[in-house]
Amino acid sequence: MVAELLSVGTELLLGNIVNTNANYLAKECASLGLSCYHQVVVGDNPERLKETLITALERSDVVIMTGGLGPTDDDLSKETAAGVCGLPLILDEHSKEMIADYFERVHAGSITNNNWKQAMIPEGAIVLDNHNGTAPGVIIETDNKAIILLPGPPGELKPMFAEHVAPYLAAKQPEQFYSKMVKLCGIGESSAETKVKDLIDEQTNPTLAPYAKIGEVHFRVTAKAKDAAQADALMEPLIKELYHRFGKLIFTTDPDETLEEVVVKLLKAKGYTLATAESCTGGLLSGRLINVAGISEVFKEGFVTYANEAKMRSLGVKEETLAQYGAVSKETAREMSEGVCQVTGADVGISVTGIAGPDGGTKEKPVGLVYIGCTVKGKTRVEEFFFTGNRKKNRDYAVVRALTLLREEIL
Amino acid sequence: MVAELLSVGTELLLGNIVNTNANYLAKECASLGLSCYHQVVVGDNPERLKETLITALERSDVVIMTGGLGPTDDDLSKETAAGVCGLPLILDEHSKEMIADYFERVHAGSITNNNWKQAMIPEGAIVLDNHNGTAPGVIIETDNKAIILLPGPPGELKPMFAEHVAPYLAAKQPEQFYSKMVKLCGIGESSAETKVKDLIDEQTNPTLAPYAKIGEVHFRVTAKAKDAAQADALMEPLIKELYHRFGKLIFTTDPDETLEEVVVKLLKAKGYTLATAESCTGGLLSGRLINVAGISEVFKEGFVTYANEAKMRSLGVKEETLAQYGAVSKETAREMSEGVCQVTGADVGISVTGIAGPDGGTKEKPVGLVYIGCTVKGKTRVEEFFFTGNRKKNRDYAVVRALTLLREEIL
Repeated sequence: MVAELLSVGTELLLGNIVNTNANYLAKECASLGLSCYHQVVVGDNPERLKETLITALERSDVVIMTGGLGPTDDDLSKETAAGVCGLPLILDEHSKEMIADYFERVHAGSITNNNWKQAMIPEGAIVLDNHNGTAPGVIIETDNKAIILLPGPPGELKPMFAEHVAPYLAAKQPEQFYSKMVKLCGIGESSAETKVKDLIDEQTNPTLAPYAKIGEVHFRVTAKAKDAAQADALMEPLIKELYHRFGKLIFTTDPDETLEEVVVKLLKAKGYTLATAESCTGGLLSGRLINVAGISEVFKEGFVTYANEAKMRSLGVKEETLAQYGAVSKETAREMSEGVCQVTGADVGISVTGIAGPDGGTKEKPVGLVYIGCTVKGKTRVEEFFFTGNRKKNRDYAVVRALTLLREEIL
Repeated sequence: MVAELLSVGTELLLGNIVNTNANYLAKECASLGLSCYHQVVVGDNPERLKETLITALERSDVVIMTGGLGPTDDDLSKETAAGVCGLPLILDEHSKEMIADYFERVHAGSITNNNWKQAMIPEGAIVLDNHNGTAPGVIIETDNKAIILLPGPPGELKPMFAEHVAPYLAAKQPEQFYSKMVKLCGIGESSAETKVKDLIDEQTNPTLAPYAKIGEVHFRVTAKAKDAAQADALMEPLIKELYHRFGKLIFTTDPDETLEEVVVKLLKAKGYTLATAESCTGGLLSGRLINVAGISEVFKEGFVTYANEAKMRSLGVKEETLAQYGAVSKETAREMSEGVCQVTGADVGISVTGIAGPDGGTKEKPVGLVYIGCTVKGKTRVEEFFFTGNRKKNRDYAVVRALTLLREEIL
């Protein structure tokens, strides 16, 4: 079954709001096993709206329209859909009561005449109650196809979809999609893809698709199946093969798990405590680690030693080291990660020092040069990186590389 | 001139990512004075991509395609656009060099054969250099229309649009939109809007539109004019009126200037140095400050003292204070910001301690309770906040409130 998303709203065309509804509905439709080939955004213009809806109905089985159900004259979605299907709009007494009731609860009686427009329903359509606003949703069934009209505000759309639309669509689908996300760190996108090109090429069910994130590569494995158990059985051989090819580069297969969560889990499993010593990343590394709930068990302390003076005072980096090798050097990174362990008593120390840019680069030490040091129980490894983004990107990459090194060294 | 946005990517259709590119481009096109009537998303399918592009070219003057410029076989945007325009793809030596250079700098030689596909350019097209990735952008001009192909990653798309595409499109437009962004901190969105409702209602040229950011309120003032000087003259009275109503709550009118940049500028102007002491924000505050280029002049050091032990050891917070009032208290916030000044010798200290959640809340100290302390030359002010988001949102709000307090106290 093919679904198409049709978002209505000039505010989307002007860029005033981000189309998060399309993202939500796309995700929901995918997990319900619906195929989705087109998403379209149009404004509150009757001609273009009609044309777009007709095209959508020609090529898709279900058209989910969002927005344009408001009380004002330029809210045209329901009128247009009814017109395209040749249906009159009829006052729905139940919806009228729901609207009156909502106003009594929320707006304390500030109802206006144009609100009754929201109770007009195409003849024979299914009405979806709105408990979070005044516009009811509508499902129009016509010639084996369906138009589903939902209100634009996410706080109304999401509960309405979950309560009414998801069960409606699921009942029409024999099979659904199930996904796992195989996430890798420490390898570039094209190297990773080259390694599994044959698997991507020969895919049918399950399918394999790569996604590049900053410093990470994700492979989505998707199976079409009747239930989760059947999906797992379909996906298992492919996931095994990915483990066979990538081994320890894979840090999780849980779509919701992040690299920092994996690192924190590893630290907890080993009973290690952690301390951070950051220069160019300026606290972003500790900030990401501390976003993991329950980090307090393992996190001893973080230092943002941007200035040389701070590196010496707080981490015990030697003045001679800074003078001889510079703040951005293998030697300083080593003394930072070893120093932060000594000062805090942490089992594991991680340090980042580099030149994020835009200034401060030289021929020998260009912008983007970053050293990352990791000390585990007194043993230190330092890695050198050259990043080529702007200041922000260099720092984001450095954070992911630091998490990657942390994970490798704890493993 | 009518522009149409055509986003290419199965990950958008599956809901794996939110289409923030469309939002960015819509905003940019609007401010360049372009009309936009359709946004379309299609997957990496050659037939549907071709069909959608042909439809877009029929009804719009400029089609901006995003995504599908990667090195793999299912990246088809350039091939499809070239095909629709009847142009062969030719190896562009300059782009090939750029790619080789990028790999040398970033991937340390891990280039694969499929990367050269990215250097293939439709004959006669304009090449847009990509300084943040390997895929060059392309402008194909055909029959008074243009297809503009941009890479999908926002970190590559945005700088490329700003550098190359915006000037290209601006040159084709007789009148353009010029904007200023009046940015406020320390006031809520609805209070801010209520204060200028009359100005929003009576707007024609310039227009006034509010945007809510985390902890900030932005008003975009937009004038349609022939040149910047005319636009400035049109906007000046309205901006004066906004200053009259909001006064010091306005921290900048430069669209590109951030709150942390304003804070760093203020510190530099006063000759003050700064140190940070963070608990629940875990380095995000120092991370944001350090994103300002040239911060090294003022930033002494940051401490991420998540554990009580670290608060005592590094900042000199008293054990009695922690025992009597708790780590999340006015008293601890005060000792943290005063302590960080003493330890580092900084003129200004800022501290954040709070309960970000999801656990750790009690009836007296609920999740979302945050204390922020600011010490300037020995004088300390502590503020109490109650945030109501999830862990991430509470921390983001705390960072902006800390920057707001910093600004107020330095002023």
